[in-house]
Amino acid sequence: MKMIEYADASAEVRAVYDDIMTSRRIDWINNFWKVLANDAKTLRRTWESLKEVMAPGALDPLTKEMLYLAVSASNGCGYCIASHTAAARKAGMSDAMFGELMAVVGMANETNRLVQGWQVEIDDRFKPKR
Amino acid sequence: MKMIEYADASAEVRAVYDDIMTSRRIDWINNFWKVLANDAKTLRRTWESLKEVMAPGALDPLTKEMLYLAVSASNGCGYCIASHTAAARKAGMSDAMFGELMAVVGMANETNRLVQGWQVEIDDRFKPKR
Amino acid sequence: MKMIEYADASAEVRAVYDDIMTSRRIDWINNFWKVLANDAKTLRRTWESLKEVMAPGALDPLTKEMLYLAVSASNGCGYCIASHTAAARKAGMSDAMFGELMAVVGMANETNRLVQGWQVEIDDRFKPKR
Amino acid sequence: MKMIEYADASAEVRAVYDDIMTSRRIDWINNFWKVLANDAKTLRRTWESLKEVMAPGALDPLTKEMLYLAVSASNGCGYCIASHTAAARKAGMSDAMFGELMAVVGMANETNRLVQGWQVEIDDRFKPKR
Amino acid sequence: MKMIEYADASAEVRAVYDDIMTSRRIDWINNFWKVLANDAKTLRRTWESLKEVMAPGALDPLTKEMLYLAVSASNGCGYCIASHTAAARKAGMSDAMFGELMAVVGMANETNRLVQGWQVEIDDRFKPKR
Amino acid sequence: MKMIEYADASAEVRAVYDDIMTSRRIDWINNFWKVLANDAKTLRRTWESLKEVMAPGALDPLTKEMLYLAVSASNGCGYCIASHTAAARKAGMSDAMFGELMAVVGMANETNRLVQGWQVEIDDRFKPKR
Repeated sequence: MKMIEYADASAEVRAVYDDIMTSRRIDWINNFWKVLANDAKTLRRTWESLKEVMAPGALDPLTKEMLYLAVSASNGCGYCIASHTAAARKAGMSDAMFGELMAVVGMANETNRLVQGWQVEIDDRFKPKR
Repeated sequence: MKMIEYADASAEVRAVYDDIMTSRRIDWINNFWKVLANDAKTLRRTWESLKEVMAPGALDPLTKEMLYLAVSASNGCGYCIASHTAAARKAGMSDAMFGELMAVVGMANETNRLVQGWQVEIDDRFKPKR
Repeated sequence: MKMIEYADASAEVRAVYDDIMTSRRIDWINNFWKVLANDAKTLRRTWESLKEVMAPGALDPLTKEMLYLAVSASNGCGYCIASHTAAARKAGMSDAMFGELMAVVGMANETNRLVQGWQVEIDDRFKPKR
Repeated sequence: MKMIEYADASAEVRAVYDDIMTSRRIDWINNFWKVLANDAKTLRRTWESLKEVMAPGALDPLTKEMLYLAVSASNGCGYCIASHTAAARKAGMSDAMFGELMAVVGMANETNRLVQGWQVEIDDRFKPKR
Repeated sequence: MKMIEYADASAEVRAVYDDIMTSRRIDWINNFWKVLANDAKTLRRTWESLKEVMAPGALDPLTKEMLYLAVSASNGCGYCIASHTAAARKAGMSDAMFGELMAVVGMANETNRLVQGWQVEIDDRFKPKR
Repeated sequence: MKMIEYADASAEVRAVYDDIMTSRRIDWINNFWKVLANDAKTLRRTWESLKEVMAPGALDPLTKEMLYLAVSASNGCGYCIASHTAAARKAGMSDAMFGELMAVVGMANETNRLVQGWQVEIDDRFKPKR
């Protein structure tokens, strides 16, 4: 599980690294990709999926980064929290926005457990119509 | 753990119900609050916190509802997903926005586990400066 | 994954069923055990572990049932919440105790996520001494 | 995300810090609050909620701290485990009580997954009556 | 969030449906894909990733299905447990194998929480060499 | 919560340590057991359960270790991931097998959340027959 540096990477891995750096307009590769590079297939698939999922669409890139961070905080993944906090800040998240994001994440986790512990049934109005 | 209807509620519970209906401009109370009303103190505290957390601020109400939904989907809380999908739609979430939100949630859960399973260390650049 | 009724159970499974009914002073077996009985080895091991863990010791049975319920609510396991709410009530949990238990569970889930999202480092005073 | 020391804190933050120290009869502030102080509103709301939730009521403070610890262990939140282990010990948790608490937490996590994986249906007797 | 039947599907969605049925040698589409079809892009990306990930490689299809089921049971995802139990059985999982799989899942969840609650540090021998 | 070394251990703890070393053909004890030894009863019960669960049966030891690792990665338990990666490698897991295992874990976590967020209902064909 060593980290694969650009100089030591196969052509297949280098192609992904190049695309990451070009797409993100950066000149370095973060540890996540260097570790995933031990499994070139997962590296390529994960990067291509991530690029497609995080591209601007009906939601803007900042909103997507904040959603990513919300999930990562809820899962307690230290690396993911650190890297997506950096990404969200780069995309424009202010201190105040981060504070409110975390307040929502905290509150959602609290009420999720209240709902489950109190065994609340879904209101008919909230059920999906099929 | 029965549901407390308005007609059967104490003055303290009614005051919260009234505030929920006024703040949300609705004329009904959903099951979550009717069940929490068995513990009037938690009902009041939870509603007051939620009202404060979900109020417009640095983030708009739609973004907050989508963050709430992202956490609920990540926690697998059925009631929370159903009620906050409804709330997010009311706040303006389109089908396309929901689709992208879920794509980000799915992707974040995938990479969170890859990061943890591969034991990726945090890059120095991502560490908080203290 | 059918449920194994007493009448259809092997001698090994019946021995566990008998011990469950004797230990709990009840005359019926709940679905969890009837389903686990498809794997007699896991049925026996789980029951023996549970009996040992839930026996009175430094903590009384009611406290143990409430801890069990707190974990189950935090994990969102519907069956576990329902069955351990019943068990905790039988052990003496009042409505007020349940309300406070859930308030703590909700609050702990909220602050757990705030801690992780804000990347709070452990205070030296809280670190275990080894 | 720097830590806000008392000397550098706003009047609003200092008021919360003072209340924490008075309520807990301590003369220092742990990292959680110093980090949350970057978002004064969440600091205040979280402290006030926590103070209300953890106050003695139908459950005594030690039981509440143990429930908090059970949830934190179940969520795998390192900081929360460390700080609430300290708090529970201060409230009177012995080594034997901690050992039994953890045994219950472990067991509950095991049976929660057995229940879900085996798809156990809720017994009618365990369903809430509404 | 209605389900998209083959007859009502767009050409893009039909192409994915056809590939699912051909690859799996079945003549029907399960609900997961019919619901995802509301977001054709996620449908296609998810199916292509899944097909690549679940293809025989260093691990055989049965092992992969059992790993999928282990994660789903650990996450408490009802639909995922039901569908991947069916898939694993089709790939050759016997009753005895399922029983042992669940026993491992239960045990892993128990010890995971013991490890975290007792704050066990990683042994030097277990640390990845980098 | 100090670690109990062999030299300082009670006869009861030593008996478990001896059995661990004999069963695993190793001459050292890892931190998990040294910490659990603070609660001799949990040490013994956990070791006996683990030994029974991980013994070869319908599933071989390598498959069991990989299932254990899949759950640990999904729970984000650092120690468990590190120790069970080592154990799985010892049991024969190659780099390629680890890569595919993690790809399945990642994918399962992604689709688990898509299923829950999209509120997919269980197909009749997947429901257990009872």
